[in-house]
Formats: sequence, structure tokens, C-alpha cells
Amino acid sequence: MTKQQIGVVGMAVMGRNIALNIESRGYSVSLYNRTDWKTTEVVDENSDKNLVATYDIEEFVNSLEKPRKILLMVQAGKGTDATIENLLPHLDKDDILIDGGNTFYKDTIRRNEYLADSGINFIGAGISGGEEGARFGPSIMPGGQEEAYALVKDILEAISAKAEDGQPCVTYIGADGAGHYVKMVHNGIEYGDMQLIAESYDIMHRGLGMTAQEIGDIFTEWNNGELDSFLMEITSHILKTTDPETGKAMVEVIMDRAGNKGTGKWTSQSALDLGEPLSLITESVFARFISAQKEERVKASKIIPAIEAEMEVTEDEKKDFIESIRKALYFSKIMSYAQGFAQLRAASEENEWNLPYGEIAKIWREGCIIRAKFLQNITDAYEKNADLQNLMLDDYFLNIVTKNNSAVRGVVSKAIAAGIPVPTFSAAIAYYDSYRSEVLPANIIQAQRDFFGAHTYNRVDKEGTFHFLWNEGKEVEIDW
Amino acid sequence: MTKQQIGVVGMAVMGRNIALNIESRGYSVSLYNRTDWKTTEVVDENSDKNLVATYDIEEFVNSLEKPRKILLMVQAGKGTDATIENLLPHLDKDDILIDGGNTFYKDTIRRNEYLADSGINFIGAGISGGEEGARFGPSIMPGGQEEAYALVKDILEAISAKAEDGQPCVTYIGADGAGHYVKMVHNGIEYGDMQLIAESYDIMHRGLGMTAQEIGDIFTEWNNGELDSFLMEITSHILKTTDPETGKAMVEVIMDRAGNKGTGKWTSQSALDLGEPLSLITESVFARFISAQKEERVKASKIIPAIEAEMEVTEDEKKDFIESIRKALYFSKIMSYAQGFAQLRAASEENEWNLPYGEIAKIWREGCIIRAKFLQNITDAYEKNADLQNLMLDDYFLNIVTKNNSAVRGVVSKAIAAGIPVPTFSAAIAYYDSYRSEVLPANIIQAQRDFFGAHTYNRVDKEGTFHFLWNEGKEVEIDW
Repeated sequence: MTKQQIGVVGMAVMGRNIALNIESRGYSVSLYNRTDWKTTEVVDENSDKNLVATYDIEEFVNSLEKPRKILLMVQAGKGTDATIENLLPHLDKDDILIDGGNTFYKDTIRRNEYLADSGINFIGAGISGGEEGARFGPSIMPGGQEEAYALVKDILEAISAKAEDGQPCVTYIGADGAGHYVKMVHNGIEYGDMQLIAESYDIMHRGLGMTAQEIGDIFTEWNNGELDSFLMEITSHILKTTDPETGKAMVEVIMDRAGNKGTGKWTSQSALDLGEPLSLITESVFARFISAQKEERVKASKIIPAIEAEMEVTEDEKKDFIESIRKALYFSKIMSYAQGFAQLRAASEENEWNLPYGEIAKIWREGCIIRAKFLQNITDAYEKNADLQNLMLDDYFLNIVTKNNSAVRGVVSKAIAAGIPVPTFSAAIAYYDSYRSEVLPANIIQAQRDFFGAHTYNRVDKEGTFHFLWNEGKEVEIDW
Repeated sequence: MTKQQIGVVGMAVMGRNIALNIESRGYSVSLYNRTDWKTTEVVDENSDKNLVATYDIEEFVNSLEKPRKILLMVQAGKGTDATIENLLPHLDKDDILIDGGNTFYKDTIRRNEYLADSGINFIGAGISGGEEGARFGPSIMPGGQEEAYALVKDILEAISAKAEDGQPCVTYIGADGAGHYVKMVHNGIEYGDMQLIAESYDIMHRGLGMTAQEIGDIFTEWNNGELDSFLMEITSHILKTTDPETGKAMVEVIMDRAGNKGTGKWTSQSALDLGEPLSLITESVFARFISAQKEERVKASKIIPAIEAEMEVTEDEKKDFIESIRKALYFSKIMSYAQGFAQLRAASEENEWNLPYGEIAKIWREGCIIRAKFLQNITDAYEKNADLQNLMLDDYFLNIVTKNNSAVRGVVSKAIAAGIPVPTFSAAIAYYDSYRSEVLPANIIQAQRDFFGAHTYNRVDKEGTFHFLWNEGKEVEIDW
């Protein structure tokens, strides 16, 4: 019996598509699914292909070349643990499991350690690009044993998306949970990008009274410049789409209640643990939450008086103002990525991952949801300086944010005056102004904490830790 | 041997002070500490008092009346678990442990369940007010078995702070972790209050060029009106305090790097888990984080060009503008409490706590850090409507936010134009405008999610779940 080169467990749409993708690159693939009919369906529908159905976990494992390479495309969480337990008795030392699910990175760290005891390699691979990406070329973020990655590198590169310059959108990210962590931050950035586009739309829609079609045309224009990205492209497509039933623009019939699958939330929670000010992405998560409170908002809209002010933009100023929104969007997008990459840096230090920031931006250029032209500029920035502390400090981005920051100030002020909520645009400018502030009013906070809780403070003019006796007007130095 | 009415474990400053507080209300108290000398020190320094030192855990437990009441004032976390394990072999059914530490509420839920197996009651009591409060009257938030609370109610009421109307600042909060949860949100609100005051200071300091003394005078004025609160009072005191060493205002020599003990972070992380948009408090946590990146900010301030704009406020307008800052502060404070109480509501449902919102505001009127006059208005609001969805929907608060929202808009715009970061003021107005928006641009987000991930959407004009075939211009209804 010839053995197959790789096995895929899980024949839901993502697993099925990725198996077809692998096979299409010239690899033989064994398939296994908990319920047999799905496996049968895949091989029946693809009878001309090099796919081998197996119906028993032992049969599946034995059908693979050693060291075995097994890609898990099962439901993240309990599904992954259950599959690992079923596989484990049949595996040998040096076999390689690859978890391609949307797994929480701490679970990946745990599983990597657990399997290492049996000498089994575990790669947690974030895969972005949806069903389409899985079938024809996703962006892949694998973390785990580097020596194991070397053995699956060829397959992953073959199935991944390719950037314009032909480079595969996959690279070794780091040890244990690094790949799933980077995928999580990718998703957080996606939340931020989407909310920024939504706020831009809202300013033009509510503020300037523009139709969906008109805004779609603007987005098409923007997509031909610095803001060239998959999300801009599809949003423009969306805005120009008409509901066949009512003849209205599709966005006018779609309910304004955003769902979420939790990865944005995880990113914010991790930022809070790391002490990283990930304000923009977090505001975008909160914006989804408040959008979901639809009934409450409808009720509130009838109780809380509307804002009388119209947006203060004359017909003559309109074109320039729309250009300001474009600049504000680009500025804010840079702030979001600056925060996201700063968080990657903090996580990398915390977990000793030694993350390759430039390579990460590079493999996001194609295949994934946040794919965009400007990611090349992030790669360039890290190639110039691998130890860059913040994207804003790179010349290219510094130049843009210096040029664009006054546009954001104007847009945010006009939106706020007209009663249009701009939580992520506001977070962007607050972050910029905080980051470039030599002195922030946190001296007030430290003084308060020292006053009510004797939490002590440092001084600007000498070393040491101090406590002030606020009722006596005396300072004491604390010798810990 | 006469037995004592209550025992206190842990003779660090908080435990010591609370033991003295209890004794001063006419109760006899047994003391125990892991290291003997601290216990000896307390009784030696207070030889005239009804305090009994014990030096062995069994001796300590046996010195108490049954059912025993034991207050744990030890280091939250491992210290609490270790103390419980030491006590456990000597305890009897119906004994009551009270954890007065700053404990994470999920630990309290776990311990409550664990001890319930042995029939031992466990009360997690949030205690706010610092060392001073512990000694003379803190605000206390106890959660756990209600029948156990009934047995310690008298003691807790005796030692608690008393509001102006004489009512004790303690009430039964709810089952298991409810008390520590409410204490956590209290601390989150404290973060928000402190950051709002810091931003108000910053606008007057950086924006209007006012001295610490001048701003202190303004805060004294504010403290005589609606904004009457402990934090306003101490900040005014702080701003008027001179450094004896340099003769400068104290706040000018205190380093602008804010620390945190994690309770603000927990509050935000819980909001993210609950799907609650706690944007203002979260921005205040992030503001502390970015303040802590002092070296990076100093470096960035030399690279990123300063904003040229001065604050657009003439000498004539100054007085009115300062009044606008006051209104903005009150408006934003209401938004922060609205978010905090909305989160309590969500947590109450999630955990079946049936939290008494009005009572919670009531026991915060004295003893704790966020004590303030306006808490009475929150109590009033919940007494009018125990099921109030959001503070903004109460007539009293609705009236204030309706009057004050244009002030916030003006202050935020002017601060942003002048390059002064106002993350929490901005979050306040974004929340207000989002909450009162019948339609938000989340329709764009749902359309994007449906486009790239087939995540489906609802429609505004009919029931059902739909997916759009974006390349074919056709809608399909999804029958799950």
C-alpha cells in the first residue's frame, strides 16, 4: 500500500477546501471525519483526485508516510482536544500535528507542551482568508517546533497565497502559540479596519447625506491609492449592490447589529494583560457590542433628544472634506497597526517568541482579510530597523501621520459636533497625542493614588520612591 | 475561658486597622498572624483594648464563639488559599469565613463552592477606603450565603462608614462572588473618575496655561457643587500642595507614570467577556498604560513634531470655557457610571446575582474612594425604577446629559485641535452618540462579514437569517 503524504481531519467546509488545495499542488491526501458520510461525499465529488477516504482513526494514521503530517481542521476547543486524544495512541515520536483552527493561543501553548512529552510535534497555524482562501490560497501563520516546521514548509508554501512578487504568504512565526497569537492580533486589526471604514461611511452618509452608491464610488477611488485593500474593495462592491427585493441599496436593508466570534475580544484582553494601550481595536470591539444592543438603542433614540446640528460642511468644501476623511482613515489605520505591532512586540518579549515583525506584515499582503498594499511599507520599516519600537517612529509612517493628523482633528471635531459617533477615529488621535506627549497628566493620578492609598511615586528630578504626608506637607523617601 | 466574638487573620496594616475598628465598636477580637511578632506588636501597642493574641491556628480557632466568624485580611491569591487550608481542619459546619481582600471574584466563587462542601460559609467582602477607611469606617461590599451574612451584619454595619443620613455603608450584595465583583467595578469606576479629572487638569494646564494653584482653586469651587466628591477634594488639596524641597507645585515634581494594581484591567476584561461596551473605563486603563511608557514617550516627543495650534480660547471666553470643562466632566462621569452600572446589570444576569443597584450606589456614598454627592441621584434613579436599563434613561440624568452634551463636544474639539489627548472625554461622547443612535453603521460590518466569511445577516424589514451571493447579486435565506 502506498502511503499518503499528509492527512486532513475534519471535512467541514474549511477542511474540505484545504484538502482540495493541498491535493491540487500535487500532494496525496488522506481524509478522515468523525461522521463517515462527509468523507464519502468529498471523495465522491472529487473522484478524479488524489484523495483517500479513511473511516477509522487507526486506518487514517496508518495510511500516512512517516513522520506523519496531520492537519486538524476541527472545531476549535473541545473538538481539537478530543481529536488529539483519539489520534494519540496511534502516533509515533516525531509525527507532526498541525492545528489549523481559530484556536486561542494559550490552548495551543498547552497542547504543544502536552504532546512534547510523547515526542510529538504540534504546530498551531493561524489560517486567514475564509473558505475561498482555504481552497485557493490563504495566509498562514504557523507556530511550534521550528524543526517540525521545516518538514511541512514545502506543503504550506505550496498551498498559501502568493504576493505580487511571487513570495508565499507563510513564514515560521515562533514557538508554541506564536502562530495563533499573531492570527488573533490579525483578527483584532481586522476589527479596527472594519470599524474605521464604517465610521467613514457614517460621516458621509449621516453627515453629508450621501447615498450608498456615491460612497461606494468614493471607496473605489480610495482603493486605487494608498488605501488599496481587500476590505476597501469589498466595501465599495457592497455599497454598490442593490437588494433585488426592494430595489434599495443592500446596506439599507441589512440590520445594523454586528456579531463577533471572540477573536477581537481576546486581542483586547491580551493587551490588558500585557499593559499595552490597544485603544483603537478595543473601541472597535465595543462598537460591535453597542451595535448589538439594537432594541435598547431604538428605545433610547426616542427618549434622548437628537442633536440639532447639521454637519458644518458647505457644498464647496465637500470635496476637500471627503479628502480629509480619506486622510483621517489612513492616519487612523496606521495608529491601529502601530498599536497592534506594539502589542506583538510585548507578547513576543513576554513569551520569548522573537517574532519576525517584517515577515508577518509580508505574509499578510495576500490571502487574508486585512490584505493591503500598505503592508509592504510595514515590512520595509522593519527591514530598515528590526527593533523598531513603534511604527510612527519609522520615517515613512512618520511623514504620513505628520501630514495627516490635522485632517483627523478636523474630521473628528465636525463629526462630534454633528452627533455622529467616531470612537475609533477619536481613539486614533488620542493615542497619537498621548504617545508624542513628553508629559501626560498621570502625575495627577500618581498623586491621588499616593494620597488615598500611600501607593508612592517617583520624582522627575531625582531617583527614588517617595510618599507624601499630604496633611503635614512632608515627603518621606521609601526604602523598600 | 471566654470566647471572642470574631477573629482576624493577617496583621498587616489593613488587618490591624480593621481589627482595631471592630474592637472600638465593642466587640472582642482574636488576632492571628503567620509571623508571631506582628500579632504581639498589635496587642502590645493596644494593651488597653479587648484584643486577644493567638500564636497557633488551632488556638485561634478555639478562641472563638460558635458559629465562628473569621475575617481574612491576607494577601489576595495564594495567601488566601493557604490560610483557608490551614484553618479548614479546625473549622466546624456553619462557621463563617469572610475574605476582606482585593480578591478576583472568580476566586471567590471557587472558594465559596469549595467550602460549601464542608458546610462552611464563605463571604467575599470588597472593602474600600484604604488604611484610613479600614480603621474608622470603610464601604463594605459583602457577597456569599445570605443566611451567613445575617450573622455578621451587625458587626459589618458597626464598623462601616456612615452616610450623612446615618445609614451604614454596607449591604448584602448577592451570592458567592457578587461582593468582590461589585468592588472590582467600583475600582474600575475609580480609574475612570481619576482619568477624567486628569484630563480636565491637562486642558487647563497645557491648554489654558493655568498653574496648579489656579486649577486647584477651580477644583475647590467644583467640589462645592454637583461634582462634590472625595477625589475632587483631594485633587484640589494636591494641586495646592508645594514641594518643600523645590518650592514648586508637588504635581510638577511627581513623575507622570501611573501604576495600577490590576482591578481596572479585570473590570475591562469582564466587560469584554460580557459583551458590554465599557469604553470609558477601558480608555482610562489604557491611559495609565501609555503613561507608564515614559521613556518611549520622551523619545517620541523629540521625533514627532509638536502641534502648532494653541487652544482657541480668548481671555474673555476663558471663564465660560472652564465652566464647559466642568459640564463635560459631569457629563462624562455620568457616562462612566452608566457604563459601569450597565455592566453590573449584565454580570448580575450572567451570574444570577440579582444585584441591588440602588443599594450599591447608596453604600458608596461614604467610606470609599469614589464617594460623592451624586451617588444619591443614582440611588434615587433605581428607587424610581429598579429595572432601569441605563442611567441616561432616568429623568434626572437625562436632563443633565441633554443640557451638558454640547459642552463636551466643544471641549473635546478644542482639546483635539490643540493636540491635548482626551481619550475618556472622547469615549464619553462617542458612547452617548452611539447609544442614542437608532441606526449605527454596523450594517457595513455585517455586510463585510457576510461577504468574506458568509457570516449571514438579518434584515431590517423582515424576520430571518440571510446570506447574499455578492458576485451573483442574489440573496438566500438560511434555514439553520
